[in-house]
Amino acid sequence: MSRTLRLAVIPGDGIGREVTAEGLKALNAALPADTKLDTVDYDLGAGRWHRTGETLPDSVLEELRQADAILLGAIGDPTVPSGVLERGLLLKLRFAFDHHVNLRPSRLYPGVASPLAAPGDIDFVVVREGTEGPYVGNGGSLRTGTPHEVATEVSLNTAFGIERVVRDAYRRAQARPRKHLTLVHKNNVLVHAGHLWKNIFDRVGQEYPEVTTDYLHVDAATIFMVTNPARFDVIVTDNLFGDILTDLAAAISGGIGLAASGNINPSGDFPSMFEPVHGSAPDIAGTGKADPTAAVLSVALLLEHLGLAEQATRIHDAVAADIAQRSAAGPRTTSQIGDALAERVAG
Amino acid sequence: MSRTLRLAVIPGDGIGREVTAEGLKALNAALPADTKLDTVDYDLGAGRWHRTGETLPDSVLEELRQADAILLGAIGDPTVPSGVLERGLLLKLRFAFDHHVNLRPSRLYPGVASPLAAPGDIDFVVVREGTEGPYVGNGGSLRTGTPHEVATEVSLNTAFGIERVVRDAYRRAQARPRKHLTLVHKNNVLVHAGHLWKNIFDRVGQEYPEVTTDYLHVDAATIFMVTNPARFDVIVTDNLFGDILTDLAAAISGGIGLAASGNINPSGDFPSMFEPVHGSAPDIAGTGKADPTAAVLSVALLLEHLGLAEQATRIHDAVAADIAQRSAAGPRTTSQIGDALAERVAG
Ligand SMILES: CC(C)[C@H](C(=O)O)[C@@H](O)C(=O)O
Ligand SMILES: CC(C)[C@H](C(=O)O)[C@@H](O)C(=O)O
Repeated sequence: MSRTLRLAVIPGDGIGREVTAEGLKALNAALPADTKLDTVDYDLGAGRWHRTGETLPDSVLEELRQADAILLGAIGDPTVPSGVLERGLLLKLRFAFDHHVNLRPSRLYPGVASPLAAPGDIDFVVVREGTEGPYVGNGGSLRTGTPHEVATEVSLNTAFGIERVVRDAYRRAQARPRKHLTLVHKNNVLVHAGHLWKNIFDRVGQEYPEVTTDYLHVDAATIFMVTNPARFDVIVTDNLFGDILTDLAAAISGGIGLAASGNINPSGDFPSMFEPVHGSAPDIAGTGKADPTAAVLSVALLLEHLGLAEQATRIHDAVAADIAQRSAAGPRTTSQIGDALAERVAG
Repeated sequence: MSRTLRLAVIPGDGIGREVTAEGLKALNAALPADTKLDTVDYDLGAGRWHRTGETLPDSVLEELRQADAILLGAIGDPTVPSGVLERGLLLKLRFAFDHHVNLRPSRLYPGVASPLAAPGDIDFVVVREGTEGPYVGNGGSLRTGTPHEVATEVSLNTAFGIERVVRDAYRRAQARPRKHLTLVHKNNVLVHAGHLWKNIFDRVGQEYPEVTTDYLHVDAATIFMVTNPARFDVIVTDNLFGDILTDLAAAISGGIGLAASGNINPSGDFPSMFEPVHGSAPDIAGTGKADPTAAVLSVALLLEHLGLAEQATRIHDAVAADIAQRSAAGPRTTSQIGDALAERVAG
């Protein structure tokens, strides 16, 4: 008996291509012997848009839908107007495949320098809602380009959409040693969306009596991120607040070069998608300076999602061991780091 | 000849009352001999709401309108539902008096501990838009309290509203030694509002050829706040992003106990309002533990706004001198710090 993992790979732009290659090395090294990896590369991103004007054709979306999972490198290039690839490709995938759990763990590995003087023990996960809020693309502009222009952006929030991600966050909190869940919003100003979040958070919490909870306004949450990040265990929050908090979280725990993410559809109706939090970094593309660790850790999230927890742990351990001797190892290229990680994973 | 400064004082809740008293001491010490201070206290906040159900009666708003300026302590109490005082009092004042320039300087005074390991020379000012964006209160909820609830929050952005605050920010950047202005938004996702901001930012910039500029997405801006805050000189941003960034900015530059703000109507059609960024901190109210420095620095912003730059500088110098010997001075109460500051201001 053998299994096949059909993985759609979207290397994307800039360093996306380079780090994805290293992620695949780690994946190959981690997969159980009975699991065959079947990858298909998809050419999407700035290059394709320049050539064809396409961001994500329906036919490609249809093919991607058949995959077991998607591995994405990074999307974006300064030659493409802001928003075109983000809305037309990255967010289109997240919305089309109903990736409502945008999972972003933060962990300060021993040996990693934090910009904080006393970071403490950083080990939390942000469960960012991925299909609602101000990201829905419900905006418009009137009298565009005139002195009388009015532009709107509508944040859409549904009880259905909030409850499922809040429930997911409680489940994750319940499974962790500290069992603490923090809701982050801004319910003193965004009262309608904020109260909906808070009411659902409180109601669902009754089903998880072991999980302790608190609520923070997003502005206060940024303060704790730099004064006491160790206070966080699981955070659940809206799409936009999650975007902001997870970049900050990445920064305090060693930088965006280490931050992994999963865009998860827990039902399995659509393939989940795994990607480093960092962008395409065109300034260092092709130089071999990109750190592939975030892509490799995204592969660990992929393995966990597929139920291969042991294999995911091997990747985490490999990363921890590699990081612990990084300053001693001296500077290495993207593929040298990738090779070293894959070798450790293979054990 | 003598002038009178008619100051409306809203001490508010919790430590708001305590720190406002110290702010007034500094103001009295700073004012020129020919200027008479005429203060009227307004009882607004949690206490009034509990007694009367009122947050900001029209008659009080009318009286406040006659003032030359408003000094506010802090608003809020856990016994009042979230949003009632924020929307009904604080934001009502900001919107009624068209406080479109929400000015929030951040400066790391020598001797102040930052949570950052290598903070560098932090000295920037955030010009936060104060009357538009997601703060307009244009939201609603359908099928409230049912599993089918839908809640919206609409961000409203006008060319008029953006241009005036962007122009104000360019003017401030032009007047500073480094002459650098950063626009923060999220124009790769909130494309309509974001492009409106960016277009106006670029167009107005042509009138300020000496001011160098850059653009950052809000998530990237939080990274720089902890990795290289010294890169910032003036930041201009939307109401919500400004709220988030300024709490983070306060945290990295010594804490919310030092962060001052001005809600400014540059036209002078309505009184501007000055307030510490911190909240009412009910947990330490009445203990004498509150740091009045943010309230005192808010008084400096008030003096600057009134054209009394020299007096404002005296307050800044007093704060810098006091802070430099804080660890030596040992713990002091709110009023001891306030007395020490006022004494230094008086010279
Ligand atoms: C590129 C952008 C659309 C995206 C987001 O805002 O979600 C990115 O910042 C992220 O966090 O994955
Ligand atoms: C209390 C709240 C309404 C307010 C805001 O969000 O503007 C506060 O956080 C601030 O920054 O002044």
